[in-house]
Order: sequence, then C-alpha cells, then structure tokens
Amino acid sequence: MSSPNRDPDHGGDSAGTRSPEIRKDPVTNRWVVFSPARAKRPTDFKSKSPQNPNPKSSSCPFCIGREDDCAPEIFRVPDVPDWKIRVIENLYPALNRDLEIQTGQLKTGRVLPGFGFHDVVVEAPVHSIQLSDMDPEDIGGVLLAYTKRIEQIKQHDSVKYIQVFKNHGASAGASMSHSHSQILALPVVPPTVSSRLDGTKEYFDQTGWCCLCEAKPKELVINESCHFVSFVPFAAAFPFEIWIVPKYHSSHFHDLDTNKAVDLGRLLKLMLQKMAKQLNKPPFNYMIHTSPLEVAESQLLYTHWFLQIVPQLSGVGGFEIGTGCYINPVFPEDVAKVLREVSLP
Amino acid sequence: MSSPNRDPDHGGDSAGTRSPEIRKDPVTNRWVVFSPARAKRPTDFKSKSPQNPNPKSSSCPFCIGREDDCAPEIFRVPDVPDWKIRVIENLYPALNRDLEIQTGQLKTGRVLPGFGFHDVVVEAPVHSIQLSDMDPEDIGGVLLAYTKRIEQIKQHDSVKYIQVFKNHGASAGASMSHSHSQILALPVVPPTVSSRLDGTKEYFDQTGWCCLCEAKPKELVINESCHFVSFVPFAAAFPFEIWIVPKYHSSHFHDLDTNKAVDLGRLLKLMLQKMAKQLNKPPFNYMIHTSPLEVAESQLLYTHWFLQIVPQLSGVGGFEIGTGCYINPVFPEDVAKVLREVSLP
Repeated sequence: MSSPNRDPDHGGDSAGTRSPEIRKDPVTNRWVVFSPARAKRPTDFKSKSPQNPNPKSSSCPFCIGREDDCAPEIFRVPDVPDWKIRVIENLYPALNRDLEIQTGQLKTGRVLPGFGFHDVVVEAPVHSIQLSDMDPEDIGGVLLAYTKRIEQIKQHDSVKYIQVFKNHGASAGASMSHSHSQILALPVVPPTVSSRLDGTKEYFDQTGWCCLCEAKPKELVINESCHFVSFVPFAAAFPFEIWIVPKYHSSHFHDLDTNKAVDLGRLLKLMLQKMAKQLNKPPFNYMIHTSPLEVAESQLLYTHWFLQIVPQLSGVGGFEIGTGCYINPVFPEDVAKVLREVSLP
Repeated sequence: MSSPNRDPDHGGDSAGTRSPEIRKDPVTNRWVVFSPARAKRPTDFKSKSPQNPNPKSSSCPFCIGREDDCAPEIFRVPDVPDWKIRVIENLYPALNRDLEIQTGQLKTGRVLPGFGFHDVVVEAPVHSIQLSDMDPEDIGGVLLAYTKRIEQIKQHDSVKYIQVFKNHGASAGASMSHSHSQILALPVVPPTVSSRLDGTKEYFDQTGWCCLCEAKPKELVINESCHFVSFVPFAAAFPFEIWIVPKYHSSHFHDLDTNKAVDLGRLLKLMLQKMAKQLNKPPFNYMIHTSPLEVAESQLLYTHWFLQIVPQLSGVGGFEIGTGCYINPVFPEDVAKVLREVSLP
C-alpha cells in the first residue's frame, strides 16, 4: 500500500459512500482489504507507463534470423526455418538443469542445490507483434507450446511444480521487449500453491464442491467463451486483476487440448485488449496457476487450474511486504462492470 | 524475477563460478532461489531512482505549523507547540476504526467489516530531515512513539495484529516525501505472521532454541550494538535485505524501553546510512515484525521480533506473484561482506 495521503483529487463519486471490507477468497486463502476511502473511480485507473508498439530492432536475439544469438533451442513450431514459436533455454537461467537433488535433502535440508528448468517461449518471430495482436489460433499455439514443454519437463522426477508466466513491460519485470513468456520448473511446491490447496480443500470439505467449478456471481463475470469464463475474483489482491477459469473441471493446465486452447486464446486476447483500452496499455503479468505435478487422487476433486492477469498499476509497499496482505482501492464488482462495458473496435 | 536476458554487461567476476542454491529460512519458512548466473557483482547494485534531500515545501501538511491540514492528532512528542514527532490519523485510512466485528464473523466469514486503525507517524517537524539524518536519540524517540501507539491500540479486543512500516521514496510506495511511517492495526493475523509462527515453532521443536536467539553466522553479520545485531538473513528474499534483531529474547516490539530504543536507533541509522552510500540512496521499506497481540505462554518461547529493511532495487514479476518464491541474484554472505566494509565519513 502506498500513500498515507493521496492526490488532492483522490476520491470521486464513489469515495466515502461505502465502508471498507476485508474479504477472503477460498482459492487464495488470503485476506484482502478493500478500501474505498483511498479509491479513485474505477474508470480513473490508468497506467503511467503505457506499453507502445515495439519499434523494429536490429539487435534483438528473439527475432527470426538471429537464432544463433540465443541459448539452445528446445523446439520450434512449426519445425521449419519460417517458425512461428520457439521454445529455448534461458541464456541466464535462475536454476540449473544439470544439478541433482537427493530425496533426503528435500525433507531435512535448509539448502538445496539449485536444480530446475528455466525456459523462454518466444511467442512470435517478428519484433513488433504482441500477444494481443495475434489471432486466437496463434495464441492457442503459444498455449499448446507451454503444454508440450510441461509434458517434457515433468518426466524429471525431481520437478515438483512448473510455473508458466509472462512479464510484459519493463515495470512488470520484462527486460526484453520482444513478446515472450517463461517456464520455470521447481524442485519444491511453492507457498502460494500449498496455500491454494489448503483453501480449496477446506471449501470442498465444507460444501462438497470445487470452488472454481461453482457458478461465478453474475456481477463479477466479465465475458464467457464456450469453455472458459473470465471474471474479477471476489477478493482480488490487485486493482483490475482478472482470472480466466475453465468451466469444465481440470486440475492441470497441461491437459488442455487444441480446441480448448484456441477458445482460451480468444478469451485471453479479449481480456488483454479490454485491459489495454481501459487502462492505457499497462505493463502486466499473467501466471498460469496449475496443480503440483503429483497430486493424490482425492486432491484432483478440488484442484482446478486458472490463468491470472495482473496489470501493473501500483507497486507494493511496506504493508504488503510485511504482512502478505494487500489493500485494493477498488471493489471487484465495480471493476467487472467497467470491463464488461469496454467496447472494442 | 525479471529478465530472461540481462544487460550485456551482466555477470562479472563472480558470475558462473557458483551453482545456484535454494535456501529456506526457518523464520520466514519460505524457499528463495539464489541465482549467481543472473548476478552482477554485489558492488554493482545501485538504485536507479536515488532519493535526494527534500526541497523545502510550502504545501506539505506534515510540516510544523500546518497541523490543521492533517487528520486529527493522536499525540505529539513532546506535548508542546514546538513538537518533534506527531502521531496522527491517516486522512485516507485503509481501515475504519468505527466499525465493529462480531466474534462469530472471524471464524466463518468470507467478508469482514473493514475495522482497523491506520495512523501516520510524522518523524520530524521539518520537511528536509530524513530519519537517517536524525540523532540516535531522536530515532529512538520515533521508535518509542510506535510503542506508545501500539499500547493504546492493543486495548481494542478486535485488533489481532499491528504492523508498523515505513515507505521511503515513491517507488517504495510513499506519496508524501516528508519523513513518516505508518501503523496499521488489523482484525486478523496476516499470512506472513502465521507462517513465521509455524517456522519458528518447527525450529524450536527440533532444537529447543528460538532461532532468532541463536548466534548469527559470522559471515552474515554486518554490525552489532549493545543490544542488537544487524545481519543479512540466510535466505534473504531481496538483494541487500537487512534484519536488525534484539540479542535478548523478546516477542513483542512494544516492550522496547528507552535505553534499548536509542541503541536500536543508532544501529538503524548506521544501516540506513550504509545502504544509502552503497546503493546510491535507494527508495526503501522497513517493517517491524512483531508477534500477534495474543500469543500463548508456550509461543513466547519461540516468537522474537525483528526489523526488516528492504531497499527497492528491482520490482517483482510473474514468477514472484505466481509462486510467492523469490529469486535473489546475490548471495547473503557476499552482501554482508560489502555492507561490513562500507566506510562512512
């Protein structure tokens, strides 16, 4: 949270008319403070660092024709010189695929060898194309490239969790402007994933339902496709955070088939375009929240993957670092209404 | 984590000579990836947005003489017109002190009324003075103002946790440049605090020791004072993160006495000055990690408060948002060595 005192023009019509609320989402299992006294109107949120179309680059190693400047290629789609997508090793990987972990180390150790995979998915051959410019079929192709790489990596016994994510824009963590995403495979199950399992299990035990299978409240829904629904989560930690969830029950993202990948590509494109229009082309991250590779049969009932989109509109401060709680100045139902009504050309 | 490809001049002497490691700190109970392949030399870390001395301001409501432009005052130190420190309500509080929470709501609810306190500590009467400019006695006075306000707030039964924090610089979340910190009192125990209790309990059960009472490895220590030690934590999530821990066992920050407050003020000043010199006056946050207000007698044995300083050198990306894990490009022992050797005038 920032600002003990906001801009003099803070507030607006809705400020002060509603009391703050503290909400907990069963999926994230985390409290979020909704604080309208600190809010601008939902329509006042705009990025201060809009991401404009990439200029041509003569030195980008991700551009077609410069493949030799990259770390080794894992595969390309299609497998011809005139590729559309390339999956490559990260030139400066956070983890090292050649290290080994002994089983005992995981249980007792405070230090593990930094084993893991860290790959890059180059989403388009041309520097000026962003993911949201692409056809749903081509976005579906990127999603299927993720699933193919996950299927390969999960053959390694020491890999426990695979995180797919995209950083778009420098302030969202991207140092390369050529459209790309990353796949990072870890030898441990990360804390947000464990917490999610606890939360969805608790909900399942209480209700008999997977909480992400349940119908979304109408006021939180943005758009739907054949197989997916996009909505603002009930306890969104970030302003204008969006989730895209499969309507059918599915624990693992990598079970996605071609038909559904294109359907998801269409809805993802729509969400990115609406967000860009409403928020002035903000930097953003998206993360695919899937289940750990090894889950018990019983856990399959309440684990359900989803894609989370977070525009970077404000940084975090000492409160968030200290507590792990977030303060969101805008209510999810207000954001959903705004995003439902964005009209695209 | 950012950057699949770093600057061409990334790396340096130490890059590539050491394998990545994954470390877990018993206090935070969280895995952190240490990734030297992505590292610069420890001495290469510099802030890109240095915080220079405040210019005079004619419109800052925190300046002496403009008290009427602020939200109501809670107390001032000393209680005279020529004050040194003021504790005031936040003009745009995240939480509302006038709401009520019923006991039952905490156990079953997914929505709580946004009850809580959100106060501001104005650390100096004059706009140009930053905390690190002040005498140890005056910094001690600020710390004692925190404790006095905590003692007042904890009288309210519904308050479960009180977070004291400071945001310094716009990119660390501060919208006001006049030196100040914030106190936020919550009706729930936040997730990082629960996780810390779990981690320190596990360590205590295994070893019989409070893990923050144990002697710090020499290579991680930066400086010591009579009652405190400053060091880089074994599994620091952020580059150049620093912890200051009381050498004596203490669960609650608000038990600090005057003598120890001045001693802590001296060490805090030294750390802020060293960080400013080494990292080019970075924006930063500090957070006081204390124990929940209600802890069982048995929990007092392994709960130990500390102050965490985090310079803002890089933002978070999709990996951190997705997993809750962090990637730190510099090993704690290398940072501690650099900070030990910083010489101040």
